Amino acid sequence: MPPPGDRPPSPQVRSRDPVALLEAAQAGDKGALGRLLSLVERGGESARLVGQLTFKPSAGIDHVVGITGAPGAGKSTLTDQLITAASAGTERIGVLAVDPSSPYSGGAILGDRIRMQGHTLDEGVFIRSMATRGHQGGLAQAAPEAIRVLAAAGLRTVLVETVGVGQVEVEVAGAADTTLVVVTPGWGDAIQASKAGLLEVADVFVVNKADRDGADQTARDLENMLDLNPAMGEWRPPVLMTTAVAGAGVDTLWAKVGEHRAYLAASGELQRRREERLVGEMNRLLVHLLERDVRGFAGGQRYETVKADLLAREVDPYQAAMRLLDGAR
Amino acid sequence: MPPPGDRPPSPQVRSRDPVALLEAAQAGDKGALGRLLSLVERGGESARLVGQLTFKPSAGIDHVVGITGAPGAGKSTLTDQLITAASAGTERIGVLAVDPSSPYSGGAILGDRIRMQGHTLDEGVFIRSMATRGHQGGLAQAAPEAIRVLAAAGLRTVLVETVGVGQVEVEVAGAADTTLVVVTPGWGDAIQASKAGLLEVADVFVVNKADRDGADQTARDLENMLDLNPAMGEWRPPVLMTTAVAGAGVDTLWAKVGEHRAYLAASGELQRRREERLVGEMNRLLVHLLERDVRGFAGGQRYETVKADLLAREVDPYQAAMRLLDGAR
Repeated sequence: MPPPGDRPPSPQVRSRDPVALLEAAQAGDKGALGRLLSLVERGGESARLVGQLTFKPSAGIDHVVGITGAPGAGKSTLTDQLITAASAGTERIGVLAVDPSSPYSGGAILGDRIRMQGHTLDEGVFIRSMATRGHQGGLAQAAPEAIRVLAAAGLRTVLVETVGVGQVEVEVAGAADTTLVVVTPGWGDAIQASKAGLLEVADVFVVNKADRDGADQTARDLENMLDLNPAMGEWRPPVLMTTAVAGAGVDTLWAKVGEHRAYLAASGELQRRREERLVGEMNRLLVHLLERDVRGFAGGQRYETVKADLLAREVDPYQAAMRLLDGAR
Repeated sequence: MPPPGDRPPSPQVRSRDPVALLEAAQAGDKGALGRLLSLVERGGESARLVGQLTFKPSAGIDHVVGITGAPGAGKSTLTDQLITAASAGTERIGVLAVDPSSPYSGGAILGDRIRMQGHTLDEGVFIRSMATRGHQGGLAQAAPEAIRVLAAAGLRTVLVETVGVGQVEVEVAGAADTTLVVVTPGWGDAIQASKAGLLEVADVFVVNKADRDGADQTARDLENMLDLNPAMGEWRPPVLMTTAVAGAGVDTLWAKVGEHRAYLAASGELQRRREERLVGEMNRLLVHLLERDVRGFAGGQRYETVKADLLAREVDPYQAAMRLLDGAR
């Protein structure tokens, strides 16, 4: 397939037909690819169709790399540098910047992304920001679908960057083949990473802003916490130092990411993780469909009766929920 | 009722019977109160019974105050100071420190709490740390139940502090009558608060560590964001400055918290919010019970067949979930 961006926008880009859009995207049309992702983000019937279309062709993706960590850790700059490092190969890169931002803002706050705009016109790089749309937990569902769209369009490597360390973001980043956890030097930062559940999802730790005081200490703290982790598998997450603004340490980091990819393939872990993620996705969607049923309860006569009993403190919330469930069976 | 701690541990403290434990707790036995909370945290039948016992008597609680914000914002120190400010009245204070910490640590990382230990022996203060136990989303369910236990035991004011700004933590803090959002001076901190969805849940903003550079700018950023909020109600969240380590600004903050409580009562918003929270709790429990059904699917023959089709890429995750759901109806 020709690299994305090789061609001028084709006539297909104006189509709303997912089949035509996917063909155009596979032929290198970035506009068509963007529209497919918009369909996924919006959800509904078109999203379902895009999901079905892209599911099989996406199976050949090479590597999904997640980048997470606390706000202010320099993830955007690091991602920017990783794009450069990754593009030095012949690979085509997709970047998803996932931002579960404030619902009332109506979309992503893109300030952080401005630095990355230099890449948007690069031949082999496609960058897309995804924000919360619709219901809670939506991003955890939409992100893997978006990754499959990029993969089906022929992008072999996808970087997924999240803005913070919320539950959804850890879930999104943890859905990668290789997850980088970025921390900065400072007392307690390693502890904070642990609190946020990042020790469990990290395949590689990055101490960014390593030119600052305390970088060595933070790296030692992380190593100590890893020493104490009883759940450690064969791969012990390495702790690397970078100064992303200067590009220092980034090539070494990217090489380590490649090493992890090789380990995953050789150990059979890559297939195991991907299968586990697919099943997890199915389970999440099942819960989501059941939740839709719950929303269906609201407004019904039985629901209103039980709700009135709850507010009169005749039954507690658990008893109320049990009553509704029993009534529905 | 006598203030908690007035009496030596009673014989009831050794009982596992929720009724006896609640009586002892109401008589001021902190050990019994602690055991009731342990029952709630563990979940299961005893938790349900505690929930039923404490539901009605908890209705008279005066004020639940949530304290949230990014890690490192100084929430623990601020909470410590608020306990002092609140205890200056005649009120009995309960404090829940909610910590959705790493599952493998097996519990809360209590380093932050050491500074608060000075209060644990105060006559009128009861402090309890709650960590993630069992299934995801557990804390969002366990926290309101724990608050009701404290209220049923006669504590009139409860402070709920969360360690970070994850989705669960925002949910927990947002379940208070009055929610304080704590930020620190620094470029972009107001933006980060917005990203984490904190603008929506904040009743009062606190710029802590206000002796640092940039405090005024951070306060201005917050005010500007509030100016842009189209969803603003009658109460515009004030932005206050504190330096918690020195106790500066804390009395003013506590007075403002009381002002918000008075506004809630006068406007009818207090009742509206509490009712909304109860209904939200019922809905969440309903979803939780439905999720339990989903876990029941796993291992069944139909589930294994659909899963095999998914892994063979015959159906995508959504189609697979729909099949399971249709089979269950």
